[in-house]
Amino acid sequence: METIGFLGMGIMGKAMAINLLRHGFKVTVWNRTLSRCDEVVKHGASLGETPAAVVKKCKYTIGMLADPSAALSVVFDKNGVLEQICDGKGYIDMSTVDADTSSKINEAIICRGGTFLEAPVSGSKKPAEDGQLVILAAGEKDLYDQVLPAFDVLGKKSFFLGEVGNGAKMKLVVNMIMGSMMNVFSEGLVLADKSGLEQQTLLDVLDLAAVANPMFKMKGPSMIKNDYSPAFPLKHQQKDMRLALALGDENAVSMPLAAAANEAFKKARSMGLGDLDFSAVHETVKHTKTT
Amino acid sequence: METIGFLGMGIMGKAMAINLLRHGFKVTVWNRTLSRCDEVVKHGASLGETPAAVVKKCKYTIGMLADPSAALSVVFDKNGVLEQICDGKGYIDMSTVDADTSSKINEAIICRGGTFLEAPVSGSKKPAEDGQLVILAAGEKDLYDQVLPAFDVLGKKSFFLGEVGNGAKMKLVVNMIMGSMMNVFSEGLVLADKSGLEQQTLLDVLDLAAVANPMFKMKGPSMIKNDYSPAFPLKHQQKDMRLALALGDENAVSMPLAAAANEAFKKARSMGLGDLDFSAVHETVKHTKTT
Amino acid sequence: METIGFLGMGIMGKAMAINLLRHGFKVTVWNRTLSRCDEVVKHGASLGETPAAVVKKCKYTIGMLADPSAALSVVFDKNGVLEQICDGKGYIDMSTVDADTSSKINEAIICRGGTFLEAPVSGSKKPAEDGQLVILAAGEKDLYDQVLPAFDVLGKKSFFLGEVGNGAKMKLVVNMIMGSMMNVFSEGLVLADKSGLEQQTLLDVLDLAAVANPMFKMKGPSMIKNDYSPAFPLKHQQKDMRLALALGDENAVSMPLAAAANEAFKKARSMGLGDLDFSAVHETVKHTKTT
Amino acid sequence: METIGFLGMGIMGKAMAINLLRHGFKVTVWNRTLSRCDEVVKHGASLGETPAAVVKKCKYTIGMLADPSAALSVVFDKNGVLEQICDGKGYIDMSTVDADTSSKINEAIICRGGTFLEAPVSGSKKPAEDGQLVILAAGEKDLYDQVLPAFDVLGKKSFFLGEVGNGAKMKLVVNMIMGSMMNVFSEGLVLADKSGLEQQTLLDVLDLAAVANPMFKMKGPSMIKNDYSPAFPLKHQQKDMRLALALGDENAVSMPLAAAANEAFKKARSMGLGDLDFSAVHETVKHTKTT
Repeated sequence: METIGFLGMGIMGKAMAINLLRHGFKVTVWNRTLSRCDEVVKHGASLGETPAAVVKKCKYTIGMLADPSAALSVVFDKNGVLEQICDGKGYIDMSTVDADTSSKINEAIICRGGTFLEAPVSGSKKPAEDGQLVILAAGEKDLYDQVLPAFDVLGKKSFFLGEVGNGAKMKLVVNMIMGSMMNVFSEGLVLADKSGLEQQTLLDVLDLAAVANPMFKMKGPSMIKNDYSPAFPLKHQQKDMRLALALGDENAVSMPLAAAANEAFKKARSMGLGDLDFSAVHETVKHTKTT
Repeated sequence: METIGFLGMGIMGKAMAINLLRHGFKVTVWNRTLSRCDEVVKHGASLGETPAAVVKKCKYTIGMLADPSAALSVVFDKNGVLEQICDGKGYIDMSTVDADTSSKINEAIICRGGTFLEAPVSGSKKPAEDGQLVILAAGEKDLYDQVLPAFDVLGKKSFFLGEVGNGAKMKLVVNMIMGSMMNVFSEGLVLADKSGLEQQTLLDVLDLAAVANPMFKMKGPSMIKNDYSPAFPLKHQQKDMRLALALGDENAVSMPLAAAANEAFKKARSMGLGDLDFSAVHETVKHTKTT
Repeated sequence: METIGFLGMGIMGKAMAINLLRHGFKVTVWNRTLSRCDEVVKHGASLGETPAAVVKKCKYTIGMLADPSAALSVVFDKNGVLEQICDGKGYIDMSTVDADTSSKINEAIICRGGTFLEAPVSGSKKPAEDGQLVILAAGEKDLYDQVLPAFDVLGKKSFFLGEVGNGAKMKLVVNMIMGSMMNVFSEGLVLADKSGLEQQTLLDVLDLAAVANPMFKMKGPSMIKNDYSPAFPLKHQQKDMRLALALGDENAVSMPLAAAANEAFKKARSMGLGDLDFSAVHETVKHTKTT
Repeated sequence: METIGFLGMGIMGKAMAINLLRHGFKVTVWNRTLSRCDEVVKHGASLGETPAAVVKKCKYTIGMLADPSAALSVVFDKNGVLEQICDGKGYIDMSTVDADTSSKINEAIICRGGTFLEAPVSGSKKPAEDGQLVILAAGEKDLYDQVLPAFDVLGKKSFFLGEVGNGAKMKLVVNMIMGSMMNVFSEGLVLADKSGLEQQTLLDVLDLAAVANPMFKMKGPSMIKNDYSPAFPLKHQQKDMRLALALGDENAVSMPLAAAANEAFKKARSMGLGDLDFSAVHETVKHTKTT
């Protein structure tokens, strides 16, 4: 495979670029604050001056930006991706963005003759370092096939989901399930506690049951201790629940549990817990006293 | 360990008794229809004529009966457990019964000087054969300690949960979580489908996510094919949801997702799906046309 | 109409008996604490020594007791209704009791050759004094027809609902609707407030809308002031919601809003609001801070 | 009061304009299809050639248009309101539009020195003819005070709710309460039916209860007959529920009953009932058979 461009050296991007280098890929990197590229350069990466310069040099360029506005900025701004994208070149946006942002980038790139993939990932820092991400790709199938060797290094598994937008949708469905399960789990913890059972024992029993899953195992012990250090902030989880419900609304899918979960997350926000971990929804189930 | 009595040679009881025999325990068995004991006798078990005869002969007797009425019957009827239970003898009821039934048996046995454990299990035929049950024991701690060697053979793990009733409660909490998760899962499957995503791909993605669990893996493929062959009948799952909510009511625990799940199971019953597998709640989420 | 017996001179019973006297009925009253009969005697009532004595004297006897145990007691205890009820005599229980209590009384009375009506009422002290109750009668139709002149004095309207049990069921359905509407109303009040609208204005607008109803008009102003002086205690409303949901469970009726309302009332109980008015469910919707 | 302009001679607008004429107001009307003005002219109205011409002639002009796009069109298009609005002139939009549309019109009018009121109404054809509308006005208080004599003719009551947007919000809160109550009512009807009670009797009892309201009285009889001729289409009610929940989301208000109601309306849409009356949500509660 030829040199891969990589835009965005945040926590995720840096880990992913280093991973590619370790597996023998040539990588040219860029970051708005160039100094954040230093470590990757030490690992053997070349430096690009601008997104456009990276795209000019590389057949494929990956973007891993913080949010939709950053994702749009590296494409549309002066010296952005659009200035050099052309027939024969591909751009893969692995940031987590909404469907509209994705569509906008997709259209602009196709318009210049380039090809595009949205490829949001499931997994955070650790899986990124270990090449254990799950990649939810959608867009141009040929491009997907061509960058598969890179995806194989970055993730434990990648999926091609069809047209642009499906990557974002799949992520919403998964996060809706995750957020609802967190509510169910919280209800179980409080029910156990108020019924005179040890919560730790419930965790032990659950871990041996058909519903055993890494999230219960990972979050349970801290939830018992009312420790909600934010890994995935509750307000972001609630936003994803809202968007998943909106997707359901669009397609006339009635989801009573997801709706109840969303209201619980809103309740948590009204209690001032929006910046804590999404497991803080546990607090909405507990007994409280009015003042 | 001395000879263990075993009352009830249904699918579960037989598998458990054979397991004990294989691990060197001496077992005396009884079943209402005595012919159902034949196979176990071939594996080396002795035969008891009546529950009373078994208890007379054995220091510890396990019951594994079909339902509360059978569980009460082997204890209270003529030639029942009560006639021979006495100081120095223990009775362990591993049937799944309600808290009232358990209490009633407990009191009668204590009254005669015996000791009692309720010990419902999580797991069905296969785990019973493989000694992979999860045992939720509650009652007399000394008795628990004494029968632990047998529990170690029957289950991959046993828990001592305190006073009689706690075993049943723990099972309700776990089943409430399981039933609610089944609803969440169904909502996710339909949302994926109506949003233009492949349901099989959702299963694949979930299996790599933090919420991956054996139930999704096992039930997902058949749910996609609308196959709801009953492993755990929906009407029983709904009964457990109702009891878990009642336990919550007793202790003033508000459980909005469990309540929504219960209503969905009731909806499924109103659609005539009560005898199918509890995964048939999936049908309540799908689009339907009025006739 | 001949002399009517009246058992139970609580707030409701006294108001009802006086009403009958005012309309020219002869009434013989009894109360466990006899002194509570004084006022009614001043209005012209005769005094009965025991429930049995009242029934002996009167062709029809009405009971208006505080709760199921009192309702059972006046019938089954020594010197109770059963001792004198016989062919040609009728007993009308206007207390609010569960279906089981009603059935039990019904069977015992029929067994002695008497006739029975359950006839719970909708309405409290004021409507009782004004003869503005709503009477939900069920049981023996002939008896209903015979006591109709008395019902016409006691209530603005009486209904004959068929077999014993239907009176209690109808009351549950109405109270389920009332409790759920109280939740909806609370959500509207908080939504208005947090959206920058005056709650009093919402009340004024609602009072002119198609959903205008006496409950919103009566409860709204005090709810805005967080005044929940108990008219109908929240814990009793929650009990009725639970029983209505159980009735739905029995008949496979899925009621997602009633279930959500029930969980909100349970939440209110967990907040220590069970003894306040059922409108205190309003507090569960408000923003709270964790401590 | 001087001549009032009136733009939009639809069912509502015509009824309102005639009402003003009957009460002695001078009115100059305009409609895109001018022939629709004939009847009003017969009642004594003058005719304006364009919205701009009407505004030029009148100190106050009322708009009553079919939808947001029509509401924007009469203001912003060639010969629209904006061309003649100026210091000393007021525009009152009584159409039902979203907050964005309202804001846009407000800003443009203020920009030209004019004053603006949004004033959506509650009530349809009949109340419009009878001057029994409820008017939810917001925007410029001085303008409100000046047009109050006209509002007094058009409605039984008008409210001034503060800044532009509050009229639309108040309408959402009221419609959320209405939609949720319709769900509660449907649950009650089905519960009564399946429990062996007559639905018509439930209607009669409800009509005497503290929750008696015109909507139950009006919709109940047709719901029992499964007659859902659209007065307020279900899909519009669901849209209002969604917007009310979004307003709650914005302000961190948790509304579990409204959320459950919204999912039921979505279920009704998935059953193909979106174009029927919103009371068709009743069908989601009934028993159905899978095919």
